[in-house]
Amino acid sequence: MKKDPIQIARAKNRAFSQSEREAVYRAIFERRDVRRNFLPHPIPSHVVRRLLMAAHHAGSVGFMQPWDFIVIQQRATKRDVKQLFIDANERAIQQYRGTKAALYRELKLEGIEEAPLNLCVTCTRQRGGPHVLGRATIRDTDIYSTCCAIQNLWLAARVEGIGVGWVSILDYDALKRLLGIPRSIKVVAYLCLGYVEAFASQPDLEQAGWRQRLALEQLVHYERWGNRAESMGKHDIVDGSGRVEGIGFSDGRQYRK
Amino acid sequence: MKKDPIQIARAKNRAFSQSEREAVYRAIFERRDVRRNFLPHPIPSHVVRRLLMAAHHAGSVGFMQPWDFIVIQQRATKRDVKQLFIDANERAIQQYRGTKAALYRELKLEGIEEAPLNLCVTCTRQRGGPHVLGRATIRDTDIYSTCCAIQNLWLAARVEGIGVGWVSILDYDALKRLLGIPRSIKVVAYLCLGYVEAFASQPDLEQAGWRQRLALEQLVHYERWGNRAESMGKHDIVDGSGRVEGIGFSDGRQYRK
Repeated sequence: MKKDPIQIARAKNRAFSQSEREAVYRAIFERRDVRRNFLPHPIPSHVVRRLLMAAHHAGSVGFMQPWDFIVIQQRATKRDVKQLFIDANERAIQQYRGTKAALYRELKLEGIEEAPLNLCVTCTRQRGGPHVLGRATIRDTDIYSTCCAIQNLWLAARVEGIGVGWVSILDYDALKRLLGIPRSIKVVAYLCLGYVEAFASQPDLEQAGWRQRLALEQLVHYERWGNRAESMGKHDIVDGSGRVEGIGFSDGRQYRK
Repeated sequence: MKKDPIQIARAKNRAFSQSEREAVYRAIFERRDVRRNFLPHPIPSHVVRRLLMAAHHAGSVGFMQPWDFIVIQQRATKRDVKQLFIDANERAIQQYRGTKAALYRELKLEGIEEAPLNLCVTCTRQRGGPHVLGRATIRDTDIYSTCCAIQNLWLAARVEGIGVGWVSILDYDALKRLLGIPRSIKVVAYLCLGYVEAFASQPDLEQAGWRQRLALEQLVHYERWGNRAESMGKHDIVDGSGRVEGIGFSDGRQYRK
């Protein structure tokens, strides 16, 4: 009787066990954008190094590895960055009116000073020379690679019990002047990191009723844009509920849309 | 005697166990950009659904969830996309001369037709209306979110034994016409997915001698751009070897720069 090729491949690959698979899905589903309740306890340097190494092992266009990491721990630096947030947020609030504006003001959108460690992630666009393999057609693939590195760090932080918050309400040009980042280098993210008491079961904005999570089936197309699951009958990848099936968490946890 | 706050936090968070932590780091370090040796065996729809759900659980600016996924399985569609790659690659080769050009020609840069499943990931920039929370200052944060979703999918695929290859050598405007994607929507990635015989121990481009992995310490700055580890003495996060320490894999595996 012929063996299932997937089983053969799994064996050759030292396949991930069920519990290893669950751990990775758990990290993915339980990762949160954290802006509150950071513990003051510093992150040990060997742990920070693991997080940065996780980021550094993302794939990158042409193996360009365009990222750099500025590790910020001094109060004075954080205070200056916090001021940049306050300035940018004042302008952002003006976009909203009425109840939305009121709700916006209640939201906690950053943890710059509370977090023991801040991290500025940049993209050095010239790294690897003028002709980076795979980048001729889409120049921004270096930025895409840097974002993949950030997601690696975010997931590694989650399994370490460290919350990460991405602060995008900042004038990055002002931030570059503050941190002495050369003009030619792009700031991709400013992150706040620290151990936390707990991770929220839902994203903050979902919990606050700002927006709801979309059903996966609304986001999946087949062969061409606009061809919906319905048209594919039993081959549909997404069921009506948009629910994940078949992860089979040992403890019965289920992650719905 | 006072308890370590990190231990308390870990307990409250149902902390990841050592083996769960290792599984996530393993997925991060063993993920590869796969362009060859895809098995013809189709990916079951419930597995594809898990991968898409992993992507859908990335964080997104203002909880915008700007991503869409076009699942491509038909030979005819793949053949047309492969032709787009051939056209774009012909132009890309012209950038190189001599030995680099010869090496480039030897590289396998896509697995569009061999992979049983192709996936086009897009970013709908208008989703969530004109004023997406956190996006006023950096408009491209929606694209950054989409890249984070792709990394989630990439890691989930790795633990399923599925290889993922990102094809960036494509004219995305031509791809949009081919897949009927509206002008206003941005293509972020075209991915090739399939079960594989094995995952390479190193990135293809590193193995081929195209580029080497950079030492982490070259990429880490302290407080300000250009302040290197050396200046921080014993607080250095990265040691001279750029090696990860303290992950303590049970089986003694070590991941070096």
